[in-house]
Amino acid sequence: MAQGTLLYAQSGGVTAVINATASAVIQAARTRQVRVLAARNGILGALREELIDTSKESIATIRALAHTPGGAFGSCRVKLKSLEEDRAKYERLLEVFRAHDVRYFLYNGGNDSADTALKVSRLAAEYDYPLTCIGVPKTVDNDLAVTDCCPGFGSAAKYTAVSIREAALDVAAMAETSTKVFVYEAMGRHAGWLAAAAGLAGADRDAAPHLILFPERPYVEADFFARVRETVERVGYCVVVASEGIQTADGRFVADAGGGQDSFGHTQLGGVASYLAGRVKDGLGYKVHWTLPDYLQRSARHLASKTDLDQAQAVGRKAVEYALKGMNAVMPVIVRSSDAPYRWKIEPAPLEKIANREKKMPAGFIRRDGYGITPAARRYLEPLIRGEAPPPYGRDGLPKYVSPKNAMVRKKLADTSTQ
Amino acid sequence: MAQGTLLYAQSGGVTAVINATASAVIQAARTRQVRVLAARNGILGALREELIDTSKESIATIRALAHTPGGAFGSCRVKLKSLEEDRAKYERLLEVFRAHDVRYFLYNGGNDSADTALKVSRLAAEYDYPLTCIGVPKTVDNDLAVTDCCPGFGSAAKYTAVSIREAALDVAAMAETSTKVFVYEAMGRHAGWLAAAAGLAGADRDAAPHLILFPERPYVEADFFARVRETVERVGYCVVVASEGIQTADGRFVADAGGGQDSFGHTQLGGVASYLAGRVKDGLGYKVHWTLPDYLQRSARHLASKTDLDQAQAVGRKAVEYALKGMNAVMPVIVRSSDAPYRWKIEPAPLEKIANREKKMPAGFIRRDGYGITPAARRYLEPLIRGEAPPPYGRDGLPKYVSPKNAMVRKKLADTSTQ
Repeated sequence: MAQGTLLYAQSGGVTAVINATASAVIQAARTRQVRVLAARNGILGALREELIDTSKESIATIRALAHTPGGAFGSCRVKLKSLEEDRAKYERLLEVFRAHDVRYFLYNGGNDSADTALKVSRLAAEYDYPLTCIGVPKTVDNDLAVTDCCPGFGSAAKYTAVSIREAALDVAAMAETSTKVFVYEAMGRHAGWLAAAAGLAGADRDAAPHLILFPERPYVEADFFARVRETVERVGYCVVVASEGIQTADGRFVADAGGGQDSFGHTQLGGVASYLAGRVKDGLGYKVHWTLPDYLQRSARHLASKTDLDQAQAVGRKAVEYALKGMNAVMPVIVRSSDAPYRWKIEPAPLEKIANREKKMPAGFIRRDGYGITPAARRYLEPLIRGEAPPPYGRDGLPKYVSPKNAMVRKKLADTSTQ
Repeated sequence: MAQGTLLYAQSGGVTAVINATASAVIQAARTRQVRVLAARNGILGALREELIDTSKESIATIRALAHTPGGAFGSCRVKLKSLEEDRAKYERLLEVFRAHDVRYFLYNGGNDSADTALKVSRLAAEYDYPLTCIGVPKTVDNDLAVTDCCPGFGSAAKYTAVSIREAALDVAAMAETSTKVFVYEAMGRHAGWLAAAAGLAGADRDAAPHLILFPERPYVEADFFARVRETVERVGYCVVVASEGIQTADGRFVADAGGGQDSFGHTQLGGVASYLAGRVKDGLGYKVHWTLPDYLQRSARHLASKTDLDQAQAVGRKAVEYALKGMNAVMPVIVRSSDAPYRWKIEPAPLEKIANREKKMPAGFIRRDGYGITPAARRYLEPLIRGEAPPPYGRDGLPKYVSPKNAMVRKKLADTSTQ
């Protein structure tokens, strides 16, 4: 039996397949007879010594996590600061790890989490505490450095492309007497990866989406209006995909223009799609509809990409393998060796090359006119949404998602958490 | 070979399975060697003599319509008025029918369409023109009289319940440090059928959706706030489903409160979910997110209910059978003979019992406190979302939806359409 306990924690926004990573981690560790604890609500649980004993879960439950969206053990949006600023918290983490003989720390998140894992590994070295820290990639934003793509993104991308293809058929059927412009708001505050994925829904100029608005390009209303009008006149309707993070040329978020307060001082929660829809209605006189899928786009496990699921599980298995080999401060990343046929493998990459960095979308992925994707983007994106991996459904017509028992291990420390 | 041509037209908002009805109509008619024309953009095409020759479509395309959302021949939101007011249009329809030897008119829509089909049949009788008119049911609103349920509703209902179940797992995972209240806006201006379907996602008190707001019950903010707070304190988060048609006690649509114009005179397209989210944020201080799925909920063929698909095809087949038997002015309706096991059959019902009527949700379907569904609602709704019927997917990871060629037949009349 391998020595020490493995602690797994989820971090940041959850995805359709982060639990598939958790499932793979726990199964791989069980095979090697390594005990796995899971932090309740991410790093908060580690700080509070709220640790879930995954050995209390049946193998059926652990397997079913592979088809269950959300974050089974809870996640959180808490970023530790520098070792200097948050030293007490980092030391508390080590104290908790020591109390539970945690020798492997797997932190499943984005670039913030990679940074935290890296800092914890440094502090452990400073204190001569034998700990192997592994960052495990996850984010629908697809903005992690080094890795070719991020588990979670492919499924959200598939949701986006399929939803656009379906809604466009609806709009097309009704356009003569009803909605002429349809606006879809995609997640992506800093990079237009999900908006770009919508481009997979249609290959030629007349196919939806007709216009994609990227945060990488300034939003210029007059130009946008001209293109909407031209599209409606040519095609009969216009399907627009807007990244939530689009900005005007002077750097203001368009979403903020749509929100604010009404004349009674009430909060108006706007968003990009509702703002653009209102402007198009006022400026061009077309009937508009819009959608804000919000969390639906990142939790739609029913429409997961098989490629994405496979990769989410592969990084989980590899994370355990690296941990037990003592490969400290690395992340299992996805390396693409070929577009067609699509081939990928998992390799270790140092956390310091990933922590706090952000992968931008290559300029060559956005069409010269700024409103669509290029063949290069298509070559990159298309394999990521390939394949279906539906969950099992019950007799009641609903997916059979599981909720683990999440039994806590007994605390060993005084409750002096800094959280 | 049967005499005369069959004209099929789609009407009103399209659904995930209205093309499945079209597919069944065309296949049933082909089997009986009856020629099928389809009106381009619904009744508009009939008025303009824009008629699609479905014999130009391959059997593969016609079959593929069964898994393609939207309205393959186009639909429209045009309601003919009374025979007196719109007599010229009704006469024009007969003129077009006569020119193309149309002896069977199948109008696939809601209660307005049933009314139009009934009026056309009366005018034909008045002119001694031999015509059999059949209303074919379709609406995600589930508000047609007589029929137990409406093709299109079951799939939208399944989309709603699955989306709530998935999003709730996301919210639950993040609630401690992020979103505590999530609001989902469901279609349903007059009746809360789709909002009620969300209730299928969770069976016990602590399961999402925690609160459903029905248009059948007045919206009282103070009471709603109290329940949101109580839910967040008890469960940790609160998932709300709001019907777009909810109204205050004095009969004003809540959605209108969220819209209007901003201080610059710009249109603010609000909606119920964004309004409620803003109010909850201001009034209770919780972090909120909301979603407006809009057309996604009625075009999500990828998540269609098998029951709904079967019924959409069955009403199409029966409509042809009734037409060829000369059963004039009827609609094939779904009759439920048993909840468990769920059993149903198709029977003809007179259009005059359906035209312009609206089926309300039974009072016994809404929980006494007004915020959830009853066991009776569950018994009614659950079979309707049962079974999966995914479309085939291509190598590119996208559903293989088809677009028919829609070749028009040559016009025979002068272009004197009143439209």
